Amino acid sequence: MNLLPFAMTLAELLAAAPATDWRPIAPENLLVMELPAGRVLVELAPDFAPRHVANIRTLAKAKYWDGLAILRLQDNYVAQWGDPDEKAPRSFGAAARSLPPEWARPIAGMPAFTALPDRDTYAPETGFSAGFPAARDAKSGQAWLAHCYGMVGAGRDVKHDSGNGAELYAVITQATRGLDRNVTLVGRVVQGIDLLSSLRRGTKALGFYATAEERTPIRSVRLASDLPAAERPNLQALRTESATFKAAVELRRFPKNEWFATPAGAVDVCNVNVPVRSAAVGLQKP
Amino acid sequence: MNLLPFAMTLAELLAAAPATDWRPIAPENLLVMELPAGRVLVELAPDFAPRHVANIRTLAKAKYWDGLAILRLQDNYVAQWGDPDEKAPRSFGAAARSLPPEWARPIAGMPAFTALPDRDTYAPETGFSAGFPAARDAKSGQAWLAHCYGMVGAGRDVKHDSGNGAELYAVITQATRGLDRNVTLVGRVVQGIDLLSSLRRGTKALGFYATAEERTPIRSVRLASDLPAAERPNLQALRTESATFKAAVELRRFPKNEWFATPAGAVDVCNVNVPVRSAAVGLQKP
Repeated sequence: MNLLPFAMTLAELLAAAPATDWRPIAPENLLVMELPAGRVLVELAPDFAPRHVANIRTLAKAKYWDGLAILRLQDNYVAQWGDPDEKAPRSFGAAARSLPPEWARPIAGMPAFTALPDRDTYAPETGFSAGFPAARDAKSGQAWLAHCYGMVGAGRDVKHDSGNGAELYAVITQATRGLDRNVTLVGRVVQGIDLLSSLRRGTKALGFYATAEERTPIRSVRLASDLPAAERPNLQALRTESATFKAAVELRRFPKNEWFATPAGAVDVCNVNVPVRSAAVGLQKP
Repeated sequence: MNLLPFAMTLAELLAAAPATDWRPIAPENLLVMELPAGRVLVELAPDFAPRHVANIRTLAKAKYWDGLAILRLQDNYVAQWGDPDEKAPRSFGAAARSLPPEWARPIAGMPAFTALPDRDTYAPETGFSAGFPAARDAKSGQAWLAHCYGMVGAGRDVKHDSGNGAELYAVITQATRGLDRNVTLVGRVVQGIDLLSSLRRGTKALGFYATAEERTPIRSVRLASDLPAAERPNLQALRTESATFKAAVELRRFPKNEWFATPAGAVDVCNVNVPVRSAAVGLQKP
C-alpha cells in the first residue's frame, strides 16, 4: 500500500524531549466544549486578546453556550457556533455586548517569539508565540495571531466592535490568512478539531445549516478551572520557545525521511502544529 | 448574527463574465467517482502528468475502483482511496504497475501561466495554469502543480516510481505544499470535495480506518466520456488566463467589501479557488 509519510520522526523527537520543554495548559485558559461526539478543547490567548478572553470566561461561567449549537459549517472555511435564534437571542448577562477589536498588539512586551526564517505571503515575519502561530511587523511594531487550521476567532458584523466572543468560529481547512487583523482571534483548538472539521456541511449561504435538526447541539462549555478535578483535562503543550519545538520546525523544513526526494527547505507557519499531549503521558515517562 | 464574509462580490463578478471566459471541462479529463453520498468529480491534468492520467483512464475503463474504498482519512491532511486488500490486491489489468514520477515539467510548452505577484513560502513564483494552482522556477526551467485544497495526487511508496495512479489522495485541508515535487499530482476535485472532507477520520496510524465497516465504499469510477450522455456532468471552469479570473484574484487580494478593515493586499495560491459551474447555468444566461 502506498503511504504518504507525515511527521514520521516527530514522535521520536517528542519522546526524547526533556520534561521542561512542555508546559501545562492553564485550566483558566482552557475552554471545554462538550458535543455529543466528544470534547473540543480550546486554549485561550489572553496575551493577544485579553478583553475577549475575559468576556469568554464570563460567558462560560454563566453557562451561556449550554444548549446552543454549531450553526455553520462552510466547507474549506470555518465551523461556527453560538446562538441560532436571531429573533429572541439569549442574554449575554454580565458579559459585554460588544468589545473593541483586538486584532493586533504591540511587539513590545509580547511573549517570546520563535521566528521562522521563510518568506510568508501575508506578513513580513511569522513564527510562534505562547503556543500560537503569529506574525510580526517590525515597522509598525505590531504582532498578531495567524488564521491557521484550528485557530478560533470571535465573529463580528461590519462594525469593528460588534463581536464579543459569544459567536466563535474555528478554521477547519486551508488557512484563511486574509482574515488576519480583520477579526479577533481568541485561541486555538488543541484537541478535538476533527469533531468540527468532519461535521456535515451546511447547505445555506455561507454554510449555515438549513434546519435546526442539522445543527450540532452544544451540551456545555466550561472553563477547565470550573470543572471538578476528575473531569478536568490535564494537557501539556510543547513550549514554542523550546529547542525541541525548533527542531520540530526544522523537521518540517527538511524532513529526515527517505520518502522525501525534494525537501521543501521551507515551511509555512500554518504547516506547523504545536504538539499537545496528555500530562499523564508525560508522567509515565521515566 | 455575526457573519464572516466570503467572496461576497465574486458571484457578481462571475455573473458578469463573458461566456468566452469559461471553458468546458473535457469529458475525457473528468473522473466521476460515485460514493453513497453523491459524486466526487476530479478534473485530470494531462499537461502536467500525462502518463499518470493515461494510466488512470485505463484503470477507470477497466472499472478498477468499483467496489474499492476510501480507506484513509487523516485529519488536517488527506482523504485516500484505493484497494484496502494488501494480501490479495486487485489486478491492474492493462494498466502500468508503476510509473516514473511526474513531479514537474518544463516551463517551455506549458499552458498559459497566470502569475501571482505575491511572495510564496515554497516556490519562487506561483500562479495558475490550465485551471490548476501551480508554481514555476525560472532558474531550473521547471513548473509543477501545487498541493492546494482539493488537489489529487498519486500515492507512492519510498521508491519514486512506485505509484501508478491506482491509489489516489485528495488534500482536504491546509495546503500540504511540502509534498510538492515529491509526489505526482494528477488533478483537482472540481465538485464534491465536501463529501471527502466531511468523512469521519480514521483512528489508526496515518488516519487509516481501523475496520472495513468504517471505510466508505466506492460504487464506481468512470471517465465522464464513458458515461451515457444523460449521466455525464456538463461542467465549465473559469479560464485561469481570463480577465474575469484575474479580477477574481484581485478581489482576494483587495476585497471590495466593507467588512474588511485590513485588506491583505496579497493572496496565497491556495486561497484562490478556480470557479466551476454547471454548463446549464451558462446556457440559461442571456
